[in-house]
Amino acid sequence: MSESIGFIGLGNMGQPMAINVLKAGYNMKVYNRDQRKAESITEAGARSGARPAEVVERGGIVITMLSNDEALKAVTLGHDGLLNYLGPGGVHISMSTVSPNLAREMHELHEKEGCSYVAAPVFGRPEAAESQQLWIVEAGNTAAKERIRPILEAIGQGIFDFGEDPAHANIVKISGNFLIAAAMESMGEVFALAEKSGIDRTQIFEMLTQTIFSSPIYKNYGKKIAEKNFQPVGFPMRLALKDVNLVLDSSEQVQSPMPFASQLHDRLLSGIAKGRGESDWAELTRGIADDAGIE
Amino acid sequence: MSESIGFIGLGNMGQPMAINVLKAGYNMKVYNRDQRKAESITEAGARSGARPAEVVERGGIVITMLSNDEALKAVTLGHDGLLNYLGPGGVHISMSTVSPNLAREMHELHEKEGCSYVAAPVFGRPEAAESQQLWIVEAGNTAAKERIRPILEAIGQGIFDFGEDPAHANIVKISGNFLIAAAMESMGEVFALAEKSGIDRTQIFEMLTQTIFSSPIYKNYGKKIAEKNFQPVGFPMRLALKDVNLVLDSSEQVQSPMPFASQLHDRLLSGIAKGRGESDWAELTRGIADDAGIE
Amino acid sequence: MSESIGFIGLGNMGQPMAINVLKAGYNMKVYNRDQRKAESITEAGARSGARPAEVVERGGIVITMLSNDEALKAVTLGHDGLLNYLGPGGVHISMSTVSPNLAREMHELHEKEGCSYVAAPVFGRPEAAESQQLWIVEAGNTAAKERIRPILEAIGQGIFDFGEDPAHANIVKISGNFLIAAAMESMGEVFALAEKSGIDRTQIFEMLTQTIFSSPIYKNYGKKIAEKNFQPVGFPMRLALKDVNLVLDSSEQVQSPMPFASQLHDRLLSGIAKGRGESDWAELTRGIADDAGIE
Amino acid sequence: MSESIGFIGLGNMGQPMAINVLKAGYNMKVYNRDQRKAESITEAGARSGARPAEVVERGGIVITMLSNDEALKAVTLGHDGLLNYLGPGGVHISMSTVSPNLAREMHELHEKEGCSYVAAPVFGRPEAAESQQLWIVEAGNTAAKERIRPILEAIGQGIFDFGEDPAHANIVKISGNFLIAAAMESMGEVFALAEKSGIDRTQIFEMLTQTIFSSPIYKNYGKKIAEKNFQPVGFPMRLALKDVNLVLDSSEQVQSPMPFASQLHDRLLSGIAKGRGESDWAELTRGIADDAGIE
Repeated sequence: MSESIGFIGLGNMGQPMAINVLKAGYNMKVYNRDQRKAESITEAGARSGARPAEVVERGGIVITMLSNDEALKAVTLGHDGLLNYLGPGGVHISMSTVSPNLAREMHELHEKEGCSYVAAPVFGRPEAAESQQLWIVEAGNTAAKERIRPILEAIGQGIFDFGEDPAHANIVKISGNFLIAAAMESMGEVFALAEKSGIDRTQIFEMLTQTIFSSPIYKNYGKKIAEKNFQPVGFPMRLALKDVNLVLDSSEQVQSPMPFASQLHDRLLSGIAKGRGESDWAELTRGIADDAGIE
Repeated sequence: MSESIGFIGLGNMGQPMAINVLKAGYNMKVYNRDQRKAESITEAGARSGARPAEVVERGGIVITMLSNDEALKAVTLGHDGLLNYLGPGGVHISMSTVSPNLAREMHELHEKEGCSYVAAPVFGRPEAAESQQLWIVEAGNTAAKERIRPILEAIGQGIFDFGEDPAHANIVKISGNFLIAAAMESMGEVFALAEKSGIDRTQIFEMLTQTIFSSPIYKNYGKKIAEKNFQPVGFPMRLALKDVNLVLDSSEQVQSPMPFASQLHDRLLSGIAKGRGESDWAELTRGIADDAGIE
Repeated sequence: MSESIGFIGLGNMGQPMAINVLKAGYNMKVYNRDQRKAESITEAGARSGARPAEVVERGGIVITMLSNDEALKAVTLGHDGLLNYLGPGGVHISMSTVSPNLAREMHELHEKEGCSYVAAPVFGRPEAAESQQLWIVEAGNTAAKERIRPILEAIGQGIFDFGEDPAHANIVKISGNFLIAAAMESMGEVFALAEKSGIDRTQIFEMLTQTIFSSPIYKNYGKKIAEKNFQPVGFPMRLALKDVNLVLDSSEQVQSPMPFASQLHDRLLSGIAKGRGESDWAELTRGIADDAGIE
Repeated sequence: MSESIGFIGLGNMGQPMAINVLKAGYNMKVYNRDQRKAESITEAGARSGARPAEVVERGGIVITMLSNDEALKAVTLGHDGLLNYLGPGGVHISMSTVSPNLAREMHELHEKEGCSYVAAPVFGRPEAAESQQLWIVEAGNTAAKERIRPILEAIGQGIFDFGEDPAHANIVKISGNFLIAAAMESMGEVFALAEKSGIDRTQIFEMLTQTIFSSPIYKNYGKKIAEKNFQPVGFPMRLALKDVNLVLDSSEQVQSPMPFASQLHDRLLSGIAKGRGESDWAELTRGIADDAGIE
């Protein structure tokens, strides 16, 4: 396990993921635009690079965990981009939630260089990343997926394979985020109705999630929403809108209307217009309370 | 356990529920508008009445399981209605999904006669009713709820108490049905997107329900929707629209807008307009396919 | 023109309408629940009755202009109701915006008594009522419509006939109100976009209404909305929601989904929840500003 | 009036517009990707160029009328693009419906070259273009706007000025298209309700457009919709979706949610998914009929 792994992107998701890879015994070189965020992980044994290119080895493996398409393009493309250094046989594990279109584009660019782009976005909040409890959705070149499997196993509790087209993993990922947002809106509407009808929000939440809606999403987000307690911020509304937009773009591309997604778009955009762009996305449900005249 | 219980309403939910009460050792008199439906349960040992009044004992317990407000009023009110025979100390366990307003009205009418109206609607499809796996939401007079507890335990796997106002149990019930419909629409939109993007519907269903959406609703309804297999009909679209309308009425009464409910209203109404009123409500997702031009 | 006309309902629409009938030379007896509102018209020469029945003559003509179904039923039905006194040959001109279902019911009840129920709802605000500029939509018995024509001509600038089924006139009326609300929402969305984009709201309003949207509705309501000047209150939001609900009920009855109507329902309900139920319905567009975080 | 004007884009709008400029006495050089479309206008006296660059004179005036952002960029930018030949003092009148963002970008690029980019999108269908009845919305450099005024007057019946920022003209234009689509959806919902209620579609259309909705949009499009007669195709649904998307993009940029626009997006996307992308956009109302189960 002396292979060296590059890791780019040490945000609140990337940081704990990188630490888990390090703990699994890999050598690691990390890069983050804001270098101060690399400190704790270099203290734990990783080396740090000043540019994306510095953490990549020819034919090696590099992981990226960034917040959007632009960030991924910035570290990957161009003269200083990682792609210019990865070379034949290399594998780029792209764990960011980016657009399916970018995944397709990246796939082709990597193929031209003789290396592989494996899309491997994750489900889970920062706490899940820390405790190695992420769910990973992967798609890309079969041989590359086999090679990186032990690394992914160090990061998540389960891996779901969606074939050779990296875009498919991204469609699944953004679909999952859409489903979470839809579940939050649905619960928010119910809890507001309950509150205005004189029923305890927490009690209806508990009934539902102990019975027919006993899944992590309903339990975890439902609790936040029932209690109107949106701290800490695991995923900001601003990025949630980005993801709903990715879903809407994909749905437009294949001509498959998604009215709930359209409505979530409006809900999230309104939240951002009201100054809540950096709040946790569960706070989209505050818009329901606003509409109902609840303080 | 020699107490005699009246049971009114032997549809595809009422029938198995009545059988479970009978199995628990109670004497039972049953009534159904279409008397042929009473045959299998009289063969199992229940007696049958020709009118609602005949299955009620003064001060006794009567259970109703009917399809809507009108049906509940028809068997309860008027000269031949059960309320005229139930008398002081009697308990009417109303397990139908009816409007919160009717629950309040019934509550008052029963109080005037010195008897109790306990709302006890259930979650679960006919299979769950058979296997005693229903979830029961109750609200009403405390003493009455204590008295009927063993009967409810014979019917469901869990009882959730929502206090003294029967309407609250009905609000919880219709909210739950709204949440199920919202989950179905959400999944339907995702599976249509997946299908048109070249991703296997079943595979994305499995990934989601093995991980963050691992609840009965997502697993059971998701499977039907992913496989486009809507047989048998557990709950017809016609009644689903009735329930979404009840949610919308309640939300209007307390002034708490529910945009997802409005959208589900339109979806279900369209399904009915297309001739699918008697199809299972999971078939609301066919409307998504129609909109996407999928055959 | 010595015929005596009964007029019931002297609100901010009924009052000027009654005055125009009086000016046309008819004898008039008026009734209003709050009798003080009858004062100015009795000063102008009408007589006043203490009960609906007192303003009706057997075989005569009575006009009602009330705010909803309940009010119309209250003055029409029961022992003291006008129907009990109208008798064979009488004509009830119902100008209120009520439900198509009530129109059908009233039609049958009047037929049984040998009299006619003509639905004749109007388009126009109180200013238009004063200046005899209302548009009238009528439906009902042909002979009765001929008889009342001069009276309607005293009230409006044009009469549109929709046949013999009174419900049809009401469907047209509530459809018109829906179209107005939809036009207001549409303009509100555009003016908010303009405002946040640095374009003058009034300038875009003027361009549009001087060209392709040069109709009274766009000009009159558009001006209010562009200038955010919602005084005076011509039609309260509370009644606008009532009318949108009538449209939705009608659309449900014939199974014809109306998604814009559903969205307007949510918008108006939210306005009412925020305490704007008595504001002019053009203020529904304040909800758009709220959603956009505009003060 | 011997000034030579370049005209690029001879589609069903550009063709009649170019002819009107020609008729006004200007010399004209035209370019169209498909050169056969230039024939009728060269027969009328214009000269034809093989490349965009060939129709542009240094310091002269060039008009573009193209279907989207990509087409405008293709003829304007790059070595062979018109911008490379227009030079100091030149004016580019951009009459296409393009994105406000592209307008801003073009404005800057033209300024760098010392020439002016005036956005001047139009309202009106091909018939209006032929009869010089277009409405023109302009924004851009003041001196340039003065210079081109006689040309615009040869094309339209009225010019509305929105200041110096070209993007503003495009926001007004796409807002107008959104309003038209919203009016069509609104009427479509009403006519479907009428039809299923037994009311003649044409009769309700006539009543409404002779009274409170007496504007060209309601009259012209309303007639098509009431009669379900969508020939000829003036503006294809595919381009209508493009414009609604431009509105949604603009609304997102300034954070001003537009729920009717979101719903129109879904409606148009569904129409396209059903194979109606090249049909007239008034046919979006067929989706309402589909939802209502109307053949």
